[in-house]
Amino acid sequence: MKIAVVGLGLIGGSMALRLKQKGFASKVLGVDNDETHSQKALELGIVDEITDLNTAVADSDLIILSAPVSVCTTLLPGILDQVKQQVVLDTGSTKMSLLDAVKGHLNRGRYIATHPMWGTEFSGPEAATLDAFDGRANVICDASESDQDALATVEQLYSLLGMYNVYMGGKDHDVHVAYVSHISHITSFALANTVLEKEREENAIFELASAGFESTVRLAKSSPAMWMPIFKQNKENVLDVLNEHITQLRKFKSCIEKENWAYLTELMENANKIKDVLDRKQ
Amino acid sequence: MKIAVVGLGLIGGSMALRLKQKGFASKVLGVDNDETHSQKALELGIVDEITDLNTAVADSDLIILSAPVSVCTTLLPGILDQVKQQVVLDTGSTKMSLLDAVKGHLNRGRYIATHPMWGTEFSGPEAATLDAFDGRANVICDASESDQDALATVEQLYSLLGMYNVYMGGKDHDVHVAYVSHISHITSFALANTVLEKEREENAIFELASAGFESTVRLAKSSPAMWMPIFKQNKENVLDVLNEHITQLRKFKSCIEKENWAYLTELMENANKIKDVLDRKQ
Repeated sequence: MKIAVVGLGLIGGSMALRLKQKGFASKVLGVDNDETHSQKALELGIVDEITDLNTAVADSDLIILSAPVSVCTTLLPGILDQVKQQVVLDTGSTKMSLLDAVKGHLNRGRYIATHPMWGTEFSGPEAATLDAFDGRANVICDASESDQDALATVEQLYSLLGMYNVYMGGKDHDVHVAYVSHISHITSFALANTVLEKEREENAIFELASAGFESTVRLAKSSPAMWMPIFKQNKENVLDVLNEHITQLRKFKSCIEKENWAYLTELMENANKIKDVLDRKQ
Repeated sequence: MKIAVVGLGLIGGSMALRLKQKGFASKVLGVDNDETHSQKALELGIVDEITDLNTAVADSDLIILSAPVSVCTTLLPGILDQVKQQVVLDTGSTKMSLLDAVKGHLNRGRYIATHPMWGTEFSGPEAATLDAFDGRANVICDASESDQDALATVEQLYSLLGMYNVYMGGKDHDVHVAYVSHISHITSFALANTVLEKEREENAIFELASAGFESTVRLAKSSPAMWMPIFKQNKENVLDVLNEHITQLRKFKSCIEKENWAYLTELMENANKIKDVLDRKQ
């Protein structure tokens, strides 16, 4: 089938590459308001043609919205106005704003709200790779609101990407990603700023940066253009988790200040349980 | 030469393996107060013989202290009492407590305070690997307090591990590692506790954990037995950085609460600079 990819970055680009390889996409139409991204996506063979949004929607069987969530939320109602039998999916990290934006829309059934749980700290079409997504979960939200045939197409698409589908209400999704994704990005951004603050005084410290530091600070390289709209759309959940996280950090602070080494050990032993949780997942 | 390894964990074990392979160590004597670790190290060929501390010191040319820093600090003065021409080094993550413990000691010159900037979240002799350390920095502190010949031996040892040596005062070292290592562990422990707190209510959320989450939470698997003494010995520096980090997190919180998206973007753009710093390092 012909697919349109709106937003030619890491996610949209990686999807296009794999769907072409698997024969799912016979032709990929690309849409991006960044001319450099568009040209790069053409050069890299991610898309076959660059076109405007209206043409892409009219000429394709399936439309993938992989722009920042704020852009997707703005575009989605207008796209649904245009579709007939086409299928529309988005890959955004928040779901409620999108779901609310098309609630009660005449063509609501053609839209599937999804969130493939994969990403890296890199962005743009150059970051796209063929082996992205593999073995990870894809979340499909409020699936009962979508038409059966459209849902089946999207389920097949994610299977071809090597992902397994998890079904969830949009509201639950937004709470959970605040915990297992959004807060990680905030702690990483804040950790980078903590250390960069010090660097003003002392340049040599990065010589000492170990793999552990690089691991916790990796996400601080992430794109603000992508993440600002996520934090905006998921404001309340993110604030809840951020408050909880600051509370947890204060416990460590208090233990060290008061030299309560037994309780500090207990806090770390509790944190060690994350190992079982992550192992169980694999 | 004959070497003694006191503390048969990730660091001591990995060193022993590599130093034997390189022919630097003709024989490795192992010391550990954990019987299971001792037996495992023998089985894995990490050490040739298990012995008590006094025998190990008397019978070896070079002694590597790779136990938790609290244990090393307790043992070091007594070991220096015994040595003649032997060389003693430790691999601890804090340096001032050790340096203070042997200040003015008659055999101070035989001791080299080092900190190889490598580690993983795993511990014990099973975690030891032959290709640890490669390409990373090793810090040597207060080198002028050590005898020239002892220093030269230790420099050669770290070169054989594939590391490059960085020289620094012990006090500076302890400040810097608080920034580029210790705080990463605290944020990771606290992040795990934040998310585990939620898991009590909702088990499904880990299904969604992406690679980004795993990256930031990886260090939460680290050993409390190793880290409690580090936070204890580096209390003041760790508290300074922890306070700064909580301040940085509060800035994110305030931006989101007040919907100051421009400043939030600015904070993330600033954090992005960590990329240049890490790239420069490589």
